[in-house]
Amino acid sequence: MTAPENHSSEGALARLAAVIESRKVANGGDPEKSYVARLLHKGPDAFLKKIGEEATEVVMAAKDVDHGADPGKLLYEVADLWFHTMVALSHYGLDPAEVIAELERREGTSGLEEKALRKAQKRAIDEGEVACVMTSSTSKP
Amino acid sequence: MTAPENHSSEGALARLAAVIESRKVANGGDPEKSYVARLLHKGPDAFLKKIGEEATEVVMAAKDVDHGADPGKLLYEVADLWFHTMVALSHYGLDPAEVIAELERREGTSGLEEKALRKAQKRAIDEGEVACVMTSSTSKP
Amino acid sequence: MTAPENHSSEGALARLAAVIESRKVANGGDPEKSYVARLLHKGPDAFLKKIGEEATEVVMAAKDVDHGADPGKLLYEVADLWFHTMVALSHYGLDPAEVIAELERREGTSGLEEKALRKAQKRAIDEGEVACVMTSSTSKP
Amino acid sequence: MTAPENHSSEGALARLAAVIESRKVANGGDPEKSYVARLLHKGPDAFLKKIGEEATEVVMAAKDVDHGADPGKLLYEVADLWFHTMVALSHYGLDPAEVIAELERREGTSGLEEKALRKAQKRAIDEGEVACVMTSSTSKP
Repeated sequence: MTAPENHSSEGALARLAAVIESRKVANGGDPEKSYVARLLHKGPDAFLKKIGEEATEVVMAAKDVDHGADPGKLLYEVADLWFHTMVALSHYGLDPAEVIAELERREGTSGLEEKALRKAQKRAIDEGEVACVMTSSTSKP
Repeated sequence: MTAPENHSSEGALARLAAVIESRKVANGGDPEKSYVARLLHKGPDAFLKKIGEEATEVVMAAKDVDHGADPGKLLYEVADLWFHTMVALSHYGLDPAEVIAELERREGTSGLEEKALRKAQKRAIDEGEVACVMTSSTSKP
Repeated sequence: MTAPENHSSEGALARLAAVIESRKVANGGDPEKSYVARLLHKGPDAFLKKIGEEATEVVMAAKDVDHGADPGKLLYEVADLWFHTMVALSHYGLDPAEVIAELERREGTSGLEEKALRKAQKRAIDEGEVACVMTSSTSKP
Repeated sequence: MTAPENHSSEGALARLAAVIESRKVANGGDPEKSYVARLLHKGPDAFLKKIGEEATEVVMAAKDVDHGADPGKLLYEVADLWFHTMVALSHYGLDPAEVIAELERREGTSGLEEKALRKAQKRAIDEGEVACVMTSSTSKP
């Protein structure tokens, strides 16, 4: 019934984004019946706080895997993190396809690490300077 | 040479995952030449810390959008967060397709909010108990 | 040589707050010579991002202690987190003594757990409702 | 009425630490009656997750202050963050006085910024290398 691409990951993300979109009160979502409608209705602080919380849970799950736990727990927490990120994207009128296009752009145009490179260079310059100056500064307190 | 779905978001995520995989030292990645290779070579704490940092940057960018900033900044930070999450997935032998399958499973089998529901119920029971007992406890200190 | 209270924790926090205050450019701090002056000069995003990062490092260190690592590492990371929090307090014209007064107020007036109680009650009501409604909602999709 | 140091911040932190300590089940704390006892009884993941959550709330409150909100909200969130950090310290057998001693040590022995300096130097070396190598690497892909 659905087109083949609906069985792809793209289909899954697009479908999930559509469900989230439908949960907005303006689209008929009911904060009394839907967790997502409730989050969206409460406003940004509600789902932004969840992003911080879920990121922490990803880190904790990963540390547990480091010490022998089942990686499935980590998968679950990453799904939670991505999910709450998608709620935020929806609120701000953005689409997961745009996130993936941004990832693709980095990979496609100038290598996956273009952006990391620029950041690392900037930081090295920034903190390199500090380090140098602070070294001389602390050497003659 | 590549199938049409390689131009889809799925293709993009799969390609990105493959590039990250190729950056592992065991696969020929060079920590001196690649940001990802370096992160993977440093080990979990390096990229887990980035997940916490990037989640915070998502939250800050979103708050700026709340106050009038360009949503493009938020898109960029979400891409950073997903990207570093994918580095972690790679380290732990997991695949973004599995994350999406988990999201799809939730949406497909019992509604998008199944898991949130269980958590909310559990938390309501947990904290409802606390709240009740604490109320009586504080009313007779 | 120093007054007795300078050997107390209070003295330490007040002294640290004074040093941070002195690092503001307006007070003669030099972003080229001081890490704190640099953070303050860069503006909120620089030190707020560090708060997210250091909180993640606290969590990672704690998980390592769970698995046998030296608790000293955790102490170190908590110091980092509190330190960067104090940089933020300074920027916003707040004082660690006010944070401690807030903690004391909670403990002193109505019990340490007053605020947590209110939050837990509110959340239980909020999420209890959701849970109930969602239960019926999912039982008749 | 109380000894002078009881009016100090040190007194407040020490008292708060003592109350938290008394909430341990081993010390008679009752998870059904006390929020802290409950957190401690649930174990590390419960309070570590709160640290990530409260750090995010600090960041959000600070961004709101940037845009005109009352700094009192930030004070409140920092108190929450420090409080949950103190629950973690208690669990791991550490004392806030040790955190403050660590902060004091940094300030006292070699300047407040000793540790930040070392980290910045290390990072500059690390990422400076990456940046250089990556530059040449991307210039001849």
